[in-house]
Order: sequence, then C-alpha cells, then structure tokens
Amino acid sequence: MTTTPARGRPRDPALDTAILTAALELFIAQGISAMSIEQVAKRAGVGKPTIYRRWPTKERLVADAIEDLVGADIRWPDAEEIAATPPQQLVRRNIDAAARTAADPKFRALVAQIYGSAVTHPVLMQTYWTHYIAPRRELAIAMLQHAQADSAVAPDADLEVIVDMLAGAVTYRVLQPNPPNFRQMKRYLTAAYRQVGLLP
Amino acid sequence: MTTTPARGRPRDPALDTAILTAALELFIAQGISAMSIEQVAKRAGVGKPTIYRRWPTKERLVADAIEDLVGADIRWPDAEEIAATPPQQLVRRNIDAAARTAADPKFRALVAQIYGSAVTHPVLMQTYWTHYIAPRRELAIAMLQHAQADSAVAPDADLEVIVDMLAGAVTYRVLQPNPPNFRQMKRYLTAAYRQVGLLP
Repeated sequence: MTTTPARGRPRDPALDTAILTAALELFIAQGISAMSIEQVAKRAGVGKPTIYRRWPTKERLVADAIEDLVGADIRWPDAEEIAATPPQQLVRRNIDAAARTAADPKFRALVAQIYGSAVTHPVLMQTYWTHYIAPRRELAIAMLQHAQADSAVAPDADLEVIVDMLAGAVTYRVLQPNPPNFRQMKRYLTAAYRQVGLLP
Repeated sequence: MTTTPARGRPRDPALDTAILTAALELFIAQGISAMSIEQVAKRAGVGKPTIYRRWPTKERLVADAIEDLVGADIRWPDAEEIAATPPQQLVRRNIDAAARTAADPKFRALVAQIYGSAVTHPVLMQTYWTHYIAPRRELAIAMLQHAQADSAVAPDADLEVIVDMLAGAVTYRVLQPNPPNFRQMKRYLTAAYRQVGLLP
C-alpha cells in the first residue's frame, strides 16, 4: 500500500503507481547503487521534479516501492488489536498472505538487493528499517509479549532474537537454492511459528 | 582453512594464501559479478593459469576464499563426535569462535555480497551451498537429532527450519543497522541456541 505522503505532496494515485512500479523494477534489476531518480523518471514517463516533490531521496522512494510489494497483502494488526486478540489468531489470519508474499520471485529478488546493499550502501537498509521494519517489530514484540502472558512463549525468551529468527529464517530460506513455492512456504512458516510458540 | 585440492593441484601454501586473499578482497569490494579471475591474478601477482590450475571457476575460488574466513576459527565436530558428545557441549565449545566470526565486519560484508548475488548470479550461492553449507547442515541436523533424543528439542520439531532460524537470525542481525560487537553477538547466539534447546 502507498503510505501517507511524507511532505504533503499532492496525490495522483496513477502517477504514484507508475513511479513506484518503475522504481521497483529498476531496483530489482540493478540494485540501489546503480539506479537513479533520472532513470525512474524516464521509465515512469514523468519529470524528475515530479518524483522529488513526492520523495526527497532515492532511498525513500525505493523503501516505499519495496513496501508496496512486501506489505500489500498482509493485514498488520494495530496495538489495540494485538492486546485484544489471541496471538495465534493473528498469525493464522496472515499466514496465507505471508506465504504468498515470501514465495513470490519478486520478493526473493528484493531481499537479495536489500541485503546486498546493506554494507556498501547502508542508507537504504537504514531507511527501510526506520520507516517500515522498526514499527512492525514493535507490533511483533507486543504480540510475543501477549503470547508470554498466555504462557505460549517462555517468560525469559529474548523477543528481539525471536523476531530475528522468524524474519531471518524466511529471508534466508528464499535465497537458498530451490526456493519454496506457496504450499511449501506455508508449511515452512507454520513450522517456524510453532517453534517459537505462535502456533500450537 | 584451505580445503583439500579439488583436482589434485600442486600445493604451495603461500601462493594459495595470496590468491585466496586477493579473491576475498575483490569479492568484498565488488561482488561476484563484477570481479574476474584476471583481476585476482593481477592482485595476487600470479598468472591466470596458476589460478585455473587450482580452481576451475571463479565461483569455486570465491567459495574457498569465503570459507577461509568463515570456517577458519570454528572447530566443526565430525559425525562420530556428534554422536558421542552432548550437543550443548559442542555448542559451548564453538560459541566464542562463532561470535568472533559473526562480529567481524568482513563477515557482514561477505554475507551481504553472497545474499546480494543469490538471485542475479545464483551459481555462487549454489557452489558455496554444495561444498560447504550442505555438509555442515547435515552435521547440525545430526546434533539436533541427538538433542531430540535427549528431550532438549521437541520430537516433532522441523530440524531444517531450526537450522535456518539459527543461521538466518545471525546473518539477518549482522546486516541490520548497528551490528553487534563480539560481546553482544555472544549474548545473541546464547539466546538463539537457548530458544531452540541447544543451551539450557
């Protein structure tokens, strides 16, 4: 989903979509270092100022473009919902969407490009982390704390490490030779959630 | 450690070291696609045939160079040792070396380059997987089976997924902003091993 504009930019959903799509395609094909706003503008058929009015940097644009693919299908619960809903129910609600996303070849390509730039061009990882991963981790931690209160997760477990184990396993798995299809990915996610106590 | 020669190449440890060091530096700086055997030869001060006599492909050379850094400090147990030794003891024996390796900035850079090429240049991941990761996963699975027999790991746990959760968490963690130092990495590994039942 396209998020709230960062600097009150005027909205034209069709234009936003064209720009985000062009950015995603270029990012997947070339990575963050090799791509430019100029290329995105050309591919989307707009002027560079049209992009800069919406996104202050290449990294903000690519972070939003990534999120457009990665976050589109998953219905993230908010803090109140997490407090009110059994964690296993929240996991079950999203497991098909998560498996579908993770089994998408575009997701593999994105993960490879994001990880690939984490050391040589760290500002992309930092930007995506700040805007999308960090808030989502807070929700995941809240869900795990709820599961701890229900005794499904050990009281002394390191919840940050558990979040890494879940996210790390999935991204590592999709980059291995023979990446899983949807059905295999769903079984995989089920096993991982079980391992940490988020599914019975 | 440098492994057994692949095609009975004549050994000159100093030459091997110079070639592997040059390959590792170029791989970290440029990635697998951009680097060439020619560049490695130049940097190591040898002729291209000297390299090709030892390594049939760029990917085999880089896989050995990676392993030289990643596998050097860790004492992998063999199958007999795994059968005879409590799993937690094997973990304790290697945890300092594993934390030291994972906290090394070179390790982060390597992981980023390996993951970064997993989709665009999959033959490197495939080569490293076949020669180094796959045999090591078998040992890890054997250790987890031993832990299952000791009731430290649940009898119905998916051991392949647990291996991914451990390796995935560490590699994901080192690519995040603010990567851990040795002390933090050791604590992190301890939490991850505890989570799967490989430490008390």
